[in-house]
Amino acid sequence: MSAEPISRGPYAKSKGQRRRILDVAVDVFGRFGGRGGSLKDIADRVGMSQAGVLHHFGSKNDLLLAVLERRDDQGRVLTPDATLEEGVEAARELLEEGNRNPGLFQLHVTLSAEATDPAHPAHEFFVERYARVSEQFTAPLRAAARDGRLSDDADPEAIAHLVMAAMDGLQLHMLLNDDVDVLKSFDVLMDAVASKYIRPDEG
Amino acid sequence: MSAEPISRGPYAKSKGQRRRILDVAVDVFGRFGGRGGSLKDIADRVGMSQAGVLHHFGSKNDLLLAVLERRDDQGRVLTPDATLEEGVEAARELLEEGNRNPGLFQLHVTLSAEATDPAHPAHEFFVERYARVSEQFTAPLRAAARDGRLSDDADPEAIAHLVMAAMDGLQLHMLLNDDVDVLKSFDVLMDAVASKYIRPDEG
Repeated sequence: MSAEPISRGPYAKSKGQRRRILDVAVDVFGRFGGRGGSLKDIADRVGMSQAGVLHHFGSKNDLLLAVLERRDDQGRVLTPDATLEEGVEAARELLEEGNRNPGLFQLHVTLSAEATDPAHPAHEFFVERYARVSEQFTAPLRAAARDGRLSDDADPEAIAHLVMAAMDGLQLHMLLNDDVDVLKSFDVLMDAVASKYIRPDEG
Repeated sequence: MSAEPISRGPYAKSKGQRRRILDVAVDVFGRFGGRGGSLKDIADRVGMSQAGVLHHFGSKNDLLLAVLERRDDQGRVLTPDATLEEGVEAARELLEEGNRNPGLFQLHVTLSAEATDPAHPAHEFFVERYARVSEQFTAPLRAAARDGRLSDDADPEAIAHLVMAAMDGLQLHMLLNDDVDVLKSFDVLMDAVASKYIRPDEG
């Protein structure tokens, strides 16, 4: 017990430094991409040496992945038995979060585009991530199909991929076109999909 | 007239070199982005000096914009009085072209993501491009509204932005998730939007 105040001090300091590095890294990678953003810029802005930054994160690539993972950790996690309505609500919350944090979204979309190259250090991260998120989006649709709430011509996977794609595309276009209203176009999509493929919940 | 064979030779040679540089630039920028892709890589692969490449394109930025403009030139151009059906057909053709040329699409999506940064050399290009394409997508919907073919709650601009976003998002996700079927999800979107907002053409 008596050692705690001594060991807690440096630990809290180190945690604070990690957080500050991550905040700056989100901004630098968001603006310059994972390849263009340099460790030197990040270190300069945090007021550390590059070796100091690497002490906390091991490598530039590890720092990049830590930034991406932090973003995912902040998102709401759906349980496997989430209903359609819960799924739509969670997706809408993600978009509202993106509106509040365009830098973080810019980072995500820039890196996911760069990472389409199989040689990119974040390629595996994104392949794994999209498979997982795709499953999270498809599961409530499959459950709705089992409950007889989907029309016979509805393809849960194709609908899930459409919704994910529209969300990323809208957030990308919003950054290049002030006229894009992400939430309005998202609601148009939800209304259209519901009109064509989904029966209202009678439960 | 007698000078023609002499002047045509170097001109044709120069045109061929320009085309070869562009082909290689599509691949290099597509894989490494506009910031990560280097003039040196491009010059090495074409078998020229960097000065030789700059002789044809002036600067790396000019080369980047030439690549982007060539892509747009290859797309089908809709007349301002295109019908809804012609618009959908043109959009579908763009996606089929993207399926045939993933490298060119990868370039487009990587650069448009990077270019969300106002300091990026292609920022103005993309802002101007998205405003123009958005108008091309919205016009047939506005015309359909005037003809009484849209439901009263249909918002032509929000629908147009949704379709553009879904197209870019699907092509991005296709590169990271083999399960994504771009054309199938696009058809789901068109069917859903038609079901909710559009009356069939009776003309």
